[in-house]
Amino acid sequence: MSNLDTDVFKVALFGAGRIGQIHAHNIASHPHSKLSAVVDINQDAASVLADKYDAQVATAEQVFSDENVDAVLIASATDSHADLIERAAQANKKIFCEKPIDLSLDRVNRCLEIVDQHQATLFIGFNRRFDKNFAALKHELNNGMIGKPELVLINSRDPGLPPLSYLEASGGLFRDMSIHDFDMACWLMGQTPVSVLAVGACLVNPEVEAVGDIDTGVITLKFATGAIAVIMNSRRTTYGYDQRIEVHGCNGMLQAENEVESTLVKTNEQGVIRQKPLHFFLERYSSAYKAEWHHFVGVLTGQQSPEVSGKDGQTALMIANAAIASLKTGQNQILND
Amino acid sequence: MSNLDTDVFKVALFGAGRIGQIHAHNIASHPHSKLSAVVDINQDAASVLADKYDAQVATAEQVFSDENVDAVLIASATDSHADLIERAAQANKKIFCEKPIDLSLDRVNRCLEIVDQHQATLFIGFNRRFDKNFAALKHELNNGMIGKPELVLINSRDPGLPPLSYLEASGGLFRDMSIHDFDMACWLMGQTPVSVLAVGACLVNPEVEAVGDIDTGVITLKFATGAIAVIMNSRRTTYGYDQRIEVHGCNGMLQAENEVESTLVKTNEQGVIRQKPLHFFLERYSSAYKAEWHHFVGVLTGQQSPEVSGKDGQTALMIANAAIASLKTGQNQILND
Amino acid sequence: MSNLDTDVFKVALFGAGRIGQIHAHNIASHPHSKLSAVVDINQDAASVLADKYDAQVATAEQVFSDENVDAVLIASATDSHADLIERAAQANKKIFCEKPIDLSLDRVNRCLEIVDQHQATLFIGFNRRFDKNFAALKHELNNGMIGKPELVLINSRDPGLPPLSYLEASGGLFRDMSIHDFDMACWLMGQTPVSVLAVGACLVNPEVEAVGDIDTGVITLKFATGAIAVIMNSRRTTYGYDQRIEVHGCNGMLQAENEVESTLVKTNEQGVIRQKPLHFFLERYSSAYKAEWHHFVGVLTGQQSPEVSGKDGQTALMIANAAIASLKTGQNQILND
Amino acid sequence: MSNLDTDVFKVALFGAGRIGQIHAHNIASHPHSKLSAVVDINQDAASVLADKYDAQVATAEQVFSDENVDAVLIASATDSHADLIERAAQANKKIFCEKPIDLSLDRVNRCLEIVDQHQATLFIGFNRRFDKNFAALKHELNNGMIGKPELVLINSRDPGLPPLSYLEASGGLFRDMSIHDFDMACWLMGQTPVSVLAVGACLVNPEVEAVGDIDTGVITLKFATGAIAVIMNSRRTTYGYDQRIEVHGCNGMLQAENEVESTLVKTNEQGVIRQKPLHFFLERYSSAYKAEWHHFVGVLTGQQSPEVSGKDGQTALMIANAAIASLKTGQNQILND
Repeated sequence: MSNLDTDVFKVALFGAGRIGQIHAHNIASHPHSKLSAVVDINQDAASVLADKYDAQVATAEQVFSDENVDAVLIASATDSHADLIERAAQANKKIFCEKPIDLSLDRVNRCLEIVDQHQATLFIGFNRRFDKNFAALKHELNNGMIGKPELVLINSRDPGLPPLSYLEASGGLFRDMSIHDFDMACWLMGQTPVSVLAVGACLVNPEVEAVGDIDTGVITLKFATGAIAVIMNSRRTTYGYDQRIEVHGCNGMLQAENEVESTLVKTNEQGVIRQKPLHFFLERYSSAYKAEWHHFVGVLTGQQSPEVSGKDGQTALMIANAAIASLKTGQNQILND
Repeated sequence: MSNLDTDVFKVALFGAGRIGQIHAHNIASHPHSKLSAVVDINQDAASVLADKYDAQVATAEQVFSDENVDAVLIASATDSHADLIERAAQANKKIFCEKPIDLSLDRVNRCLEIVDQHQATLFIGFNRRFDKNFAALKHELNNGMIGKPELVLINSRDPGLPPLSYLEASGGLFRDMSIHDFDMACWLMGQTPVSVLAVGACLVNPEVEAVGDIDTGVITLKFATGAIAVIMNSRRTTYGYDQRIEVHGCNGMLQAENEVESTLVKTNEQGVIRQKPLHFFLERYSSAYKAEWHHFVGVLTGQQSPEVSGKDGQTALMIANAAIASLKTGQNQILND
Repeated sequence: MSNLDTDVFKVALFGAGRIGQIHAHNIASHPHSKLSAVVDINQDAASVLADKYDAQVATAEQVFSDENVDAVLIASATDSHADLIERAAQANKKIFCEKPIDLSLDRVNRCLEIVDQHQATLFIGFNRRFDKNFAALKHELNNGMIGKPELVLINSRDPGLPPLSYLEASGGLFRDMSIHDFDMACWLMGQTPVSVLAVGACLVNPEVEAVGDIDTGVITLKFATGAIAVIMNSRRTTYGYDQRIEVHGCNGMLQAENEVESTLVKTNEQGVIRQKPLHFFLERYSSAYKAEWHHFVGVLTGQQSPEVSGKDGQTALMIANAAIASLKTGQNQILND
Repeated sequence: MSNLDTDVFKVALFGAGRIGQIHAHNIASHPHSKLSAVVDINQDAASVLADKYDAQVATAEQVFSDENVDAVLIASATDSHADLIERAAQANKKIFCEKPIDLSLDRVNRCLEIVDQHQATLFIGFNRRFDKNFAALKHELNNGMIGKPELVLINSRDPGLPPLSYLEASGGLFRDMSIHDFDMACWLMGQTPVSVLAVGACLVNPEVEAVGDIDTGVITLKFATGAIAVIMNSRRTTYGYDQRIEVHGCNGMLQAENEVESTLVKTNEQGVIRQKPLHFFLERYSSAYKAEWHHFVGVLTGQQSPEVSGKDGQTALMIANAAIASLKTGQNQILND
């Protein structure tokens, strides 16, 4: 690799949108990584972002043929992920890809085969694993603080419904939003569920039904140990991003609560009023995005293995598909491991 | 009625056990009710309790033929409830009966027919509706504070597993323990669910399986409005009685948290330590038992109608039966209203 | 004593006002005490209260000459306390007296001399010592949970200013309201302070100044160990009764927080809203009044010694007087023990 | 100014110690500032820090004679502050100085005269004003959320006693540690107190007395409005950095609580355990240091005026001196504004 001497890895970014911008900032701020190129079909967006961090606007071809590029970060549209992963694997680049790999499980499977063939390094950006609160919960769970987990509850609610056009291309609530929670459940339990039950409804906006989706859902996962995980999702709160986890185990309970805007408490005739949860994922997971990039630099230096693999992305998608089937049939779906 | 002049209602109590003793205290403490008789097959228990409150030990026959008895409180063994309700209805006594009416839905239906024939007054002791915290939540919900409810979460966990002999006669987790939560869900939503999904496991003690029961369960109820309620039950915590409710609505969230032993907070190198939840139902629902008795005296004076009817008891049992069927089949059970 | 056989102590109550009514209820509800007589210059009030609990209206003379009266509870106007204590001591009655003994330290001293001469049993109603939250804090402090106490903070604020006519007869903020906090500080520290510093102001209502009082005050007590206690008082909050204690010790911190109306939490665009503190002392200290009466019955049976003595009442008044002197002079006041 | 075209201000840092390192990071991370030089008598420390951010090691002479240096950040030993401020003012550099200006009020006064003569821009680093929690409290106070402030409570406790050698040079508890709290009280109230009362003790370590200092103190400030502020200080907790503020006003109460390590809650037989406060000022005020640097860059661009002036530093020192006098005399000290 060209930059072993300097220990600064050159990273090409695909996607100059909202999430791409976060990653660009973290890449540029880390002492051992540098943003070298930005690829986006929106040339203006690519140009603004590249200028900000002293990088080049590039095409995918230029990135994959540039021997100086050590790694790619894929934050482009979902339907481009699998292609870019495959091309990066073939070009011998280390890969950081935003979730999901693809909305089609077949496509994911073919993509991961190619990753395997090239023994490529692939990290999937399930950023919540790097949230300090959830990480603290996982740490205590692993330490045996509450013994074996028996009941897991993941409350995960967005502040507001995205545009219907977004929903149409999203793959639906379970593949777009709950998929993060499926990964959290598997990560916390250290295993994949054996069956999936899902119910759902359109309560936020009836037009969601017209685009074939739901906006409110509850998924129950059963594990081989007998443990049960419940995920409660809504596309809308009126008070910000609601992201809480509770694990009941044989020796106690662990909870990770929302982060709030400040520790201010107002007490008056209305009651004792604390601050709302942080608004949305950009605020809540700002530190998690940074921590995940630090981890990936550790992968680049060879000191760490990817904590989230392509297999993890595949598993979460399998659960999402089973949840969709359960929602349609009203029946328990058995997962083949 | 014999005591209109004094406005003190005479009450006969069936069952001198743990819950009977609570009721005896509340009956005796209320300015408009008096414990006049105690019936129990355990004559010693009946005698101790009767002496404490200046009442008589009696047989069921004596109670039902005594014109001076205005009301009966049935806190005896479950399998005696339906018989005693029927006999009290025939004897023209007002009836307060601990849940459940019976473990058999057929038996419940026959019993309620007899209650109807005699136009008897029947109150079922779902005491949680009278807990001040849940009542405050219900009050805000009814006031429209969070708009239409969309997701209901009931966490309900006992401090420890009862003896296996108790479980054998209990009707199982869903009919014995979750039945309270089914009533809470219906009460909060103001409607009966249209379908029921249940999963469960033996995680606390494998011997529970040997007696044909489970000790850990999750039940998902779907309502005609599309709203979804989730009940999470365990027979064991290590930290007391865990009784919390959360309702997510279109304009916000309501939560009723555990009551704790005191407001003491200790801060040291271990962290910021608050007190545990109250130990079990006798502690947590002590005020609710009292409030429910005050309500029933209001029923006796004719100023109030029973807030929990025989129909409510019947509905909760129907949901429990559907949950049992879902647990066995792994399928969604449709409830016929 | 006349009622050793029945173990039910006969109690005469002086004062049928707000606090007298609470005590009457607790006396009548306790299995080993009975309200036998009520004395009040307001004959109607005395009569209503006596009727409610099946007691007699009586004069002081009748009470003190009635050999069947075991104990007196003095909840009449402050300026009658010392006289009644003395007469009760002479008549060989056990004495429960609301704070203060008198507003004049000389009068208190003379009164306690007479109590001593007759070896009378005197309990002063500093009810906060019996609040479960403060008692839990004291228990942990005594257990050494935080080691030696170094800084004590007592926040004590009433919901609203009483009428000016009340203030005129009250003895002023420090002798009327802070006196409870002085007792708490001494009780928590297990010792009497060596010096007192006070500042104050009229911030709630300027008319308070016209009657020679203040409505806002801060008192700093220094103890021989070097520990420092701060009391922060206001006659007005807008959110109920604010009664909190914090103790910082060499191994950690203990805090007793406010009790609230319920555990309900509302979350919406305004924030995360919990319930207000309980409104005032009748609500907050309802259980403490009951617990203090249970203690006094223990004193009557000879199983307990009074946990609050006349000396404790005297000490609190001495501190109040020193605080008044400090407020006037702006100087530290040395207390002679 | 030399770099108007680039809008990147060149900053020389005095002091490469713990706090200097924080500032160096913030200077280097801001898009409109650059660390150009590091001055420290410890040449190794200066060199390491300069290398990290691509800056030069320099002498004071070099800094003050370099026309390219726009601003200085003074984070060196306290006794060098006043001299460096004066030289920077004479050299026409914008000045950011860590508190205090000096431990001698006379020296501070002379220094500020020279600052005035040169119309120099001076910002004093009372970083707590930039803590998001305290800033949120101040914002609500200014908005009139609780009306006029009446009682202010500042709890400010360090995790552990510094070395005695540090204390000897520190100027004592009130000038070294409480000085931050004096500034907070003045900032919150928007005015300077009219009198000061202080008590204190050596409770953490008796050797503190041997070096003429105290480790535990309570200071009461009275304002012309009648409002009262209390500051409670200790050099040692066992649970981290305790930094809380509470303001009681005529329409309610505002509190800013501690920030904690994470939102994790563990519940077991010990209780409900939350995480400790952040360990010390480097953790708690990390964001405040960054926010204060952003503010100072706003001062450099001319868009903002210094929110903390030399006068503010002088006032806090005056209060500290009055507190020392009160501690010695046991008397109220009147402050001449």
